[in-house]
Amino acid sequence: MIIARVIGSAVSTAKTERLKARKLLVVQEATVRNELREDAAPFVAVDAAGAGEGELVLVAVGSGGRFTELTDQAPADATIVGILDSLVVDGQYTFQKS
Amino acid sequence: MIIARVIGSAVSTAKTERLKARKLLVVQEATVRNELREDAAPFVAVDAAGAGEGELVLVAVGSGGRFTELTDQAPADATIVGILDSLVVDGQYTFQKS
Amino acid sequence: MIIARVIGSAVSTAKTERLKARKLLVVQEATVRNELREDAAPFVAVDAAGAGEGELVLVAVGSGGRFTELTDQAPADATIVGILDSLVVDGQYTFQKS
Amino acid sequence: MIIARVIGSAVSTAKTERLKARKLLVVQEATVRNELREDAAPFVAVDAAGAGEGELVLVAVGSGGRFTELTDQAPADATIVGILDSLVVDGQYTFQKS
Amino acid sequence: MIIARVIGSAVSTAKTERLKARKLLVVQEATVRNELREDAAPFVAVDAAGAGEGELVLVAVGSGGRFTELTDQAPADATIVGILDSLVVDGQYTFQKS
Repeated sequence: MIIARVIGSAVSTAKTERLKARKLLVVQEATVRNELREDAAPFVAVDAAGAGEGELVLVAVGSGGRFTELTDQAPADATIVGILDSLVVDGQYTFQKS
Repeated sequence: MIIARVIGSAVSTAKTERLKARKLLVVQEATVRNELREDAAPFVAVDAAGAGEGELVLVAVGSGGRFTELTDQAPADATIVGILDSLVVDGQYTFQKS
Repeated sequence: MIIARVIGSAVSTAKTERLKARKLLVVQEATVRNELREDAAPFVAVDAAGAGEGELVLVAVGSGGRFTELTDQAPADATIVGILDSLVVDGQYTFQKS
Repeated sequence: MIIARVIGSAVSTAKTERLKARKLLVVQEATVRNELREDAAPFVAVDAAGAGEGELVLVAVGSGGRFTELTDQAPADATIVGILDSLVVDGQYTFQKS
Repeated sequence: MIIARVIGSAVSTAKTERLKARKLLVVQEATVRNELREDAAPFVAVDAAGAGEGELVLVAVGSGGRFTELTDQAPADATIVGILDSLVVDGQYTFQKS
């Protein structure tokens, strides 16, 4: 899963049926230290984890994005599947949710 | 889903059966401010949202592209699944459909 | 679908059963003006559209490559699903099949 | 499968049901000599092989990530499916697990 | 399918059940002239074609990697599905198996 930060939200009224009533968030890939990767293009993910703006999350991309109750059979190629509490790299915390 | 702008259309008469009668649009990835990403190659997506040229849209890529009524069982690896009304990043509108 | 030009062909006798008797073409991604993208690596696609060398085609990649009669249940991660007649970008023809 | 090194771990309590009780590790792509690829962004994979920090592993990405007992029907787009004992390139060991 | 050269092999004893007894080869993307692409990271593929070191092969990636008898239901995101005999580009042989 991609480590990404929620940076915003998207509104789309004219969308296909199976995406209706889904919360669409704008996310951007981030480092393990919660720094945005400037070379990574922001994209839109369905929120299946109750994420909020500014949170560091895990995004399942590709077909994996459909394997949540909210996105089953939906054309969701990117879904937020978890909110990160912490990341440890080389034995040290690089991120802790405040 | 990729944030992309519809920049044109494609015509292909010799195409596989399951793509027949589908509207094929040329799209290019865009920023949250509706600027084209010049380093992103334009590609062709099936239109499942009734999108028009110049509109900012959401494109589901990969297997997700097949999960609309129009593209079920079709070799569609990219499908327009929504027309964007607005994008908000860091609490500010970066795009509003005019 | 990727916009690509057919630049050649591949022969492989020792291939898995489900690819037998399939025409394998070498394709390279192209611009909407039918210029090869030099930074894009040529790859091999199954031809499901009766394409010929030099033609500009649409290539479905990933799982979408299996959704044609010729590639059903085959390990085809790239399939030519249409021959392009024309592309229009910003209201102008950028490509017309001659 | 991607050759990657386990560099850390992730904790996420608010995650979708089907990822619960799964060990989430932070991995980064590596060379055949077990050097980290600095240009490759670390990502999170479900551990289906009992891997430990510092080990060189094989990561199945995309839909392949779901084809283990631990990840069946889960939104796992990256799963550690093997721990590498050794790699041989051009007839020479480039990596041997110590 | 990706054009790649077999450059080595991998051994992994602690791997998930469905990959057991599968030959794992190290491959690297190559040009149509059988030159390794130095910017392409070597990766590991299941051999479903009886390939040997040094051979130029076709690798199916993503879900396509599972559509061989050897990899059915396995977490194989890259599978060698054919050994190349020859490649012709622009009417000239760029590769012939010796």
